[in-house]
Amino acid sequence: MLPYKSLIQIDRNIPVTIYIQVCNSFISLITNGTLQPSDILPSSRILAELIGINRNTVKLAYEELISQGWAESVERKGVFVLSKLPVISKTKLPETNKNSSKEESFLWTNKFKEARPVRNFQKAGLSIDDGFPDVRLAPVDQLMREYRSLSKKFYGKNFLKYGSSKGSEHLRISISNYLSNTRGLAVSSENILITKGSQMGIYLTAQLLLNPSDVVAVGTSNYSYADDTFKYAGANLVRIPVDANGMDIDYLEEILQKQKIKVVYIIPHHHFPTTVTLSMERRLKLLNLAREFRFAIIEDDYDFDYHYENKPYLPLASIDHNHNVIYIGSISKTFAPALRIGFMTGPSVFIDAVASLRELIDKQGDTLLEDAFSVLFNNGEMERHFRKSLKIYKQRRNLFCDILQSEFRDTIEFEIPEGGLAIWSHFDSKIDLVKMSENALKNGLSIDNGKFYKNESFVTNAMRLGFASLEEKEMVKALGILKKVVQ
Amino acid sequence: MLPYKSLIQIDRNIPVTIYIQVCNSFISLITNGTLQPSDILPSSRILAELIGINRNTVKLAYEELISQGWAESVERKGVFVLSKLPVISKTKLPETNKNSSKEESFLWTNKFKEARPVRNFQKAGLSIDDGFPDVRLAPVDQLMREYRSLSKKFYGKNFLKYGSSKGSEHLRISISNYLSNTRGLAVSSENILITKGSQMGIYLTAQLLLNPSDVVAVGTSNYSYADDTFKYAGANLVRIPVDANGMDIDYLEEILQKQKIKVVYIIPHHHFPTTVTLSMERRLKLLNLAREFRFAIIEDDYDFDYHYENKPYLPLASIDHNHNVIYIGSISKTFAPALRIGFMTGPSVFIDAVASLRELIDKQGDTLLEDAFSVLFNNGEMERHFRKSLKIYKQRRNLFCDILQSEFRDTIEFEIPEGGLAIWSHFDSKIDLVKMSENALKNGLSIDNGKFYKNESFVTNAMRLGFASLEEKEMVKALGILKKVVQ
Repeated sequence: MLPYKSLIQIDRNIPVTIYIQVCNSFISLITNGTLQPSDILPSSRILAELIGINRNTVKLAYEELISQGWAESVERKGVFVLSKLPVISKTKLPETNKNSSKEESFLWTNKFKEARPVRNFQKAGLSIDDGFPDVRLAPVDQLMREYRSLSKKFYGKNFLKYGSSKGSEHLRISISNYLSNTRGLAVSSENILITKGSQMGIYLTAQLLLNPSDVVAVGTSNYSYADDTFKYAGANLVRIPVDANGMDIDYLEEILQKQKIKVVYIIPHHHFPTTVTLSMERRLKLLNLAREFRFAIIEDDYDFDYHYENKPYLPLASIDHNHNVIYIGSISKTFAPALRIGFMTGPSVFIDAVASLRELIDKQGDTLLEDAFSVLFNNGEMERHFRKSLKIYKQRRNLFCDILQSEFRDTIEFEIPEGGLAIWSHFDSKIDLVKMSENALKNGLSIDNGKFYKNESFVTNAMRLGFASLEEKEMVKALGILKKVVQ
Repeated sequence: MLPYKSLIQIDRNIPVTIYIQVCNSFISLITNGTLQPSDILPSSRILAELIGINRNTVKLAYEELISQGWAESVERKGVFVLSKLPVISKTKLPETNKNSSKEESFLWTNKFKEARPVRNFQKAGLSIDDGFPDVRLAPVDQLMREYRSLSKKFYGKNFLKYGSSKGSEHLRISISNYLSNTRGLAVSSENILITKGSQMGIYLTAQLLLNPSDVVAVGTSNYSYADDTFKYAGANLVRIPVDANGMDIDYLEEILQKQKIKVVYIIPHHHFPTTVTLSMERRLKLLNLAREFRFAIIEDDYDFDYHYENKPYLPLASIDHNHNVIYIGSISKTFAPALRIGFMTGPSVFIDAVASLRELIDKQGDTLLEDAFSVLFNNGEMERHFRKSLKIYKQRRNLFCDILQSEFRDTIEFEIPEGGLAIWSHFDSKIDLVKMSENALKNGLSIDNGKFYKNESFVTNAMRLGFASLEEKEMVKALGILKKVVQ
């Protein structure tokens, strides 16, 4: 007989009933080949004594094994492992199997071997992030109230069944009004798909537009998630310089004379990471080039709502009469990053195709949450929120810049950005940002180390310093710690 | 002077201020080339008269144009279109431009030209779906209470900032306990990724495991979204027959002798659409083959929780000692389809790679909702819900089958399924399911037309009839209408 006393381990501290534990132990012995088809199991009396449990518990375990099709009872003979089970050769599970590198058996190619840099500002406590909104300003409670009240109202209705993969029709209509009012962008709900944030808009568009080896033009510096998303779709990147007026469209034109470009990815308000705004001249020229060379423009305008000086420029999509622009926006970014919601617009045939892909990815969004946001757009809550936070963020930007100017004169150079939630800050070349980040953390401040902004053709000792999520007191404290560690 | 009276249309019924409407009209005229760089704009007095608005409103519009960088004011001369704007050739926007087929200008290949069949049971009112839960049974209100209370508790905390792309750590721990208790599946939170439902698990796994031209084995009949997802990843499908005991694993073995198969996709509890359960023998044999031929198994076990006879069989993943199984489950399916939440488990290196792709798709899930579900798992609410609904669904299954047996003897053949939420129903060959569906709708019943279940190698006059979402009265009424239209 097998050494059941050691093979069958009962743990009274886990929330699994004893008989199920015994049953699972036997299944384990069968499936790893220790017990073979037709082997007899010990009698319930013997096993109960051996492992110190009640005999009825063993009987229950055996019944469970039989009902699950692992064993059979032969009258007056006992319980046997089912004879018609396939024979399994004994395997020894080495202890090193716990080692994650040996964990896999099937063959696959890891497309993500190079891990993205871990970013440090996500930790709890005081942190300088890279441009997050202050979630304390968002009308989260109003949203939750609507969410819950909708769930009650529609309880049991089709509302909670599957919905459209384009997203809630209510929210699409609210967003089409919002885009018309704020951006002069005339789109109807059939041109809109609700996403889980702007990243999903980039992913869906990249998947639909790009085939392997297609070329995408992006800024020399760029949002690295977008770079990775285009690469994941098999595309090759061509990098276009970015200066104080945004992407250099003359340079792009020269490239276009020489090679086919399928897509230009642009962040007009405000370029990530450098926060510059694409000038109106360049916007128009880019649209002309798109018409001439028939490329698509992905306009990632996640930052449109935060502009402190004049009104922001109209999006390319609002000016475009030729349907070359896929326009991507975020609500998460202006509300709370954890509530994933955004939108994209484009020609309706394109949006239909995007919806088909969306169905394969996750069927649809959270209809309840989408409808709750729709209520906040329609009752003016969103507009109040935008207006209120814009005012507060402008004050915070000014204070943050004042402190940088007075306290970091020798260590940080920057331009005051016209909009957005972060300052693109060049640190003195003597400052090692990785060490600075480590030291800051020791002093109670989470701050990133600048790696996220670098790429193969963009190396700089700069990083984005987000000011929007910090109240005055927090800002003074955070910059106080930063000053200490950059000296 | 241009015919501004007809070119500038004011609409007092839309929620856009008049001066912005005027401004946007001018931008439109500039960007479509009607107004060229250095053209003079009419004086505010003249324009105000022409279009019948206040002169100050025109002045405001001109200021807006100037501040947005479209125009410049030259003292004592007037307002001009900015001279340094690029010249745009006049375009005539043909009326047919509204036609969606002419809407696009950039070049792209529509990967989704073949639209999926529109399914009819999504409409409001009485419907026989293809196996949805009854959302009225789900503790949606408890969930919402937790959701809102969490949002208050963590208001302003990092909670609402970005979280892990693997999903809420709380929910991953809750699900690891749940999987251990219900399925004997021993995984820790690092082996779990929270998805937006089982479809996302299939998509992520397909993207990570498959390269173009890899082969995936699926059932002859199969969940067509899974087929489409594998095809989208570039894979070729090999179809394996499915009988009363699930996929024919002997047949699979013969194929494996001849060609390399990268992935086997299996729905063990209960095969979609035919509702059969994969027998234990076949489960073990499949695992042996996976070890021998080193393929991965995608185990889509969305239906595990609904089994009415004995305990369900252990998942392949619980038996597997060789880490060949990616296990996919759904919470949406047992709760409410619109609340998108599910999970997948696998080797931790694999889950890490999946998380990297997830970041590109939508960064992360809805942390609040995930944490609210975690509370329901931990306080026993989910288990109560599972137990309660299992009992009710069993009664509904029995009643539904009784009615089918007595009232549809000549028109529908079926086997009583051991589990799941639908009956796989073979209709008499004389019944045209498309017409039946149309007639049913005219009589107030939404029911699908069977197209969804067909594929290039599976043609049948059968469809799934979902019983779980119908209360007794509704069921009697729905089947009454169905009887009328199949006669």
